[in-house]
Amino acid sequence: MIERRTFLTALASTLLVQPLVRAQQTPALNDLTADLVAANRILAMENVLDAMGHVSVRHPARPDRFLLARSMPPELVTANDILVLDLDGNPVDAGGRTSYLERFIHSEIYKARPDVNAIVHCHTPSLIPFADSDVPLRAMYHMAAFIADGVPVFDIRQAAGMTDLLVRDARLGKALASSLGNKSVALMRHHGAVVVATSIPNVVGRSVYLDLNARVQIQTIALGGKATYVDPAEARLRMADPNEYARAWDLWKRRVTR
Amino acid sequence: MIERRTFLTALASTLLVQPLVRAQQTPALNDLTADLVAANRILAMENVLDAMGHVSVRHPARPDRFLLARSMPPELVTANDILVLDLDGNPVDAGGRTSYLERFIHSEIYKARPDVNAIVHCHTPSLIPFADSDVPLRAMYHMAAFIADGVPVFDIRQAAGMTDLLVRDARLGKALASSLGNKSVALMRHHGAVVVATSIPNVVGRSVYLDLNARVQIQTIALGGKATYVDPAEARLRMADPNEYARAWDLWKRRVTR
Amino acid sequence: MIERRTFLTALASTLLVQPLVRAQQTPALNDLTADLVAANRILAMENVLDAMGHVSVRHPARPDRFLLARSMPPELVTANDILVLDLDGNPVDAGGRTSYLERFIHSEIYKARPDVNAIVHCHTPSLIPFADSDVPLRAMYHMAAFIADGVPVFDIRQAAGMTDLLVRDARLGKALASSLGNKSVALMRHHGAVVVATSIPNVVGRSVYLDLNARVQIQTIALGGKATYVDPAEARLRMADPNEYARAWDLWKRRVTR
Amino acid sequence: MIERRTFLTALASTLLVQPLVRAQQTPALNDLTADLVAANRILAMENVLDAMGHVSVRHPARPDRFLLARSMPPELVTANDILVLDLDGNPVDAGGRTSYLERFIHSEIYKARPDVNAIVHCHTPSLIPFADSDVPLRAMYHMAAFIADGVPVFDIRQAAGMTDLLVRDARLGKALASSLGNKSVALMRHHGAVVVATSIPNVVGRSVYLDLNARVQIQTIALGGKATYVDPAEARLRMADPNEYARAWDLWKRRVTR
Repeated sequence: MIERRTFLTALASTLLVQPLVRAQQTPALNDLTADLVAANRILAMENVLDAMGHVSVRHPARPDRFLLARSMPPELVTANDILVLDLDGNPVDAGGRTSYLERFIHSEIYKARPDVNAIVHCHTPSLIPFADSDVPLRAMYHMAAFIADGVPVFDIRQAAGMTDLLVRDARLGKALASSLGNKSVALMRHHGAVVVATSIPNVVGRSVYLDLNARVQIQTIALGGKATYVDPAEARLRMADPNEYARAWDLWKRRVTR
Repeated sequence: MIERRTFLTALASTLLVQPLVRAQQTPALNDLTADLVAANRILAMENVLDAMGHVSVRHPARPDRFLLARSMPPELVTANDILVLDLDGNPVDAGGRTSYLERFIHSEIYKARPDVNAIVHCHTPSLIPFADSDVPLRAMYHMAAFIADGVPVFDIRQAAGMTDLLVRDARLGKALASSLGNKSVALMRHHGAVVVATSIPNVVGRSVYLDLNARVQIQTIALGGKATYVDPAEARLRMADPNEYARAWDLWKRRVTR
Repeated sequence: MIERRTFLTALASTLLVQPLVRAQQTPALNDLTADLVAANRILAMENVLDAMGHVSVRHPARPDRFLLARSMPPELVTANDILVLDLDGNPVDAGGRTSYLERFIHSEIYKARPDVNAIVHCHTPSLIPFADSDVPLRAMYHMAAFIADGVPVFDIRQAAGMTDLLVRDARLGKALASSLGNKSVALMRHHGAVVVATSIPNVVGRSVYLDLNARVQIQTIALGGKATYVDPAEARLRMADPNEYARAWDLWKRRVTR
Repeated sequence: MIERRTFLTALASTLLVQPLVRAQQTPALNDLTADLVAANRILAMENVLDAMGHVSVRHPARPDRFLLARSMPPELVTANDILVLDLDGNPVDAGGRTSYLERFIHSEIYKARPDVNAIVHCHTPSLIPFADSDVPLRAMYHMAAFIADGVPVFDIRQAAGMTDLLVRDARLGKALASSLGNKSVALMRHHGAVVVATSIPNVVGRSVYLDLNARVQIQTIALGGKATYVDPAEARLRMADPNEYARAWDLWKRRVTR
């Protein structure tokens, strides 16, 4: 019975919801799609993503949906490559296009975190040392205030024993979302990181400055002295600005579209 | 009464001083504006500034004024984006254009330091480790002789307790200027740095070589041996040349204007 | 007698085998040659190779042959520069073109490892510290799973005493192949590394991520905490995907051919 | 009397030697000038030199002369900017063009070292840590075999007490040449380095790989293990090849002339 119901839901999705989604290709959705394309290219240009990794945004009209490129290098993504997926990680309009294997990172975090509207999953080299070490990643300056309340490390082995280290299904995505909790970033042991925010400009800004901050912390520790970190109270005051990365976003978007 | 007087001063500024400033758009001011535009682009190209940070120059005819771009990424600044501000941080010719939030860094240092004609405020990643650590930034080679007499660290918390870490008003700008004292550079804890000099070429040269010097010091400490530093007496002899960075400035300006 | 027999074999190679090889310029060989040219350029673009180093592929129809550029910088290689060599390191179609001095690295590994179809020899700076130190190179994340079972270090001095450090003949090539054993990578003390895989995309992907992984490990150690590494069991599960680097290969190839 | 004699020598130089030099503008000199221009641009492209530093070559027909650009950024040098200087550091054909202040580095080394035909003076950031530390720069791999017999550090303070750290005259140049002795490289405390070789391609190759080798050594030390270095006997065997950097030189020259 369950299988049949799933089938009917899928059928309804194809017959009913799909046209609805198309009808919703309003200016807002077009703009968001353009921003998601720009985000893919910016994150590649800034070396946060290489050929791997991905960035998504929650659907503006359907909070139970999100937009994510088909399985391809972020640097090459165009508007035609953007798929809509539901919160089970199923594409609703794939049309034969392949989804990223690890799309469950996105679906499960959107499910668990109504405040989150944009997500980056990356393997940025500067972050791996903190994912593989017991030295916690800390906020070194105001541009990385969003991690002042701590950065959890997700260890897939705790959730599922020996794996190929990939978040291949909803269960693993849920375990990662649980590690993330209410934070802005979770590191993934022997793998990479996930960064969340309220918007595309903010998740891109956070990803770029998370990389810079990690490199700054490594250099600070190398100095061998006593280090200090941004106080969580200072960070909260700093994060009162909801458009912290707007100026950088404008610059980056201009660079990748000219 | 105070408000009214302020209003009248502003009115006078609009009616009387503005035309005066315009009349002063002499070749000297035009050249300085072109150099300030070049400085913005050079500092972006050299990764001293990213989308954030700013560079200013004292007005050549009015020592109680300075030139600073409107609030925008340095890489994109053109001559039309340059504002004139007074030493209270108020733009005198904004024409609806927004000023940088942290313009008080500039106004208060120009007020306190008659010898200073150009200022950079930056978040250069190589400098943050020294802003966050008790290991002092030292002069490693002749190209950074200007810091051989020491680099103070401004801690905004000492001046104002818990803040969002930004120099949002004249009081905080004054505290920073006081930390700087008669030095060439002040680091700003969990934030960045301010660099001052007698001219645009010199402040740009100092900012570029401060970044290089910081990276050299981090590497020197990583070697684990006994390090030596430029002696303040050597540095004073080296700084006798008032155009130390002229050759570099010519090259950089050529790069950003071709 | 031996010399004469060698001469006759070489003669036969010229008269008989060469036409055979030409007749085999099937689409498969043309495609493989194009991929080998792309691999040369990708490895230069990614700074795995500079003016030195080389990449080869086993001949698709003749497992006792391999393709390797003539002696030249990888960045400049074209299809006309690709030679076919036998497993004694002799070019069968040189036509006056010079072979790389260290071609015996390739010939001896192809001889010893039937499972290997592509080989990179490089001097990538990030790898030398592990070649010169007793700290073993370890797998820091899933993108470098292929080294989780260990990275041997070949010390030419053990094999041949004082040399110019170059693998100049078959005997030294054989000693290197013996050090490599059944592993994916061997470091070469005071020299560089050799990376092997089942295909050109895989050997290029491994070389690029080996460089990234080495830099990640250096940074992880610099943190000073307790580090963990990819477990060999996790690595084996991860390596079940025979086309692990396909997405990256597509992107890189597109970059060097546009 | 001395002044008058100097004047007469200078006059003779203008009247007699200059035409001789012009007559010697044989193809060999033209080729060498082109190579010196290429060397300037390559060293800038490879970040060995920035706006400062210089490269020279001994005159092919007059061993008591050398070629050096006029005082300008290496990146911009053309054939018209190349001066001929004598071994007292005096330009013989300046025609109003300014010489580098530190030309005595070159003149005194050419005087002391008949085997040297090309010299680079640089402030490459990776070298300064070894100039400022008691940790000696060592040969990490075969590409830097030329420093296996040791790298002296020149301390200008030992030669002349407190200075502005610049090699401003023949006496300081001679002290530097004396520190260099019969080696390939001397570091200059709080300043930079000088690299010497038998030819332009070799001095450029050595300068590029000296930078890479320094960065490799810093990373090797950061690993915290026991390191080994290229043995002087291995280095001597490796340096038997007089054209070690020919392949790299061809590539670099092609890059800066296309």
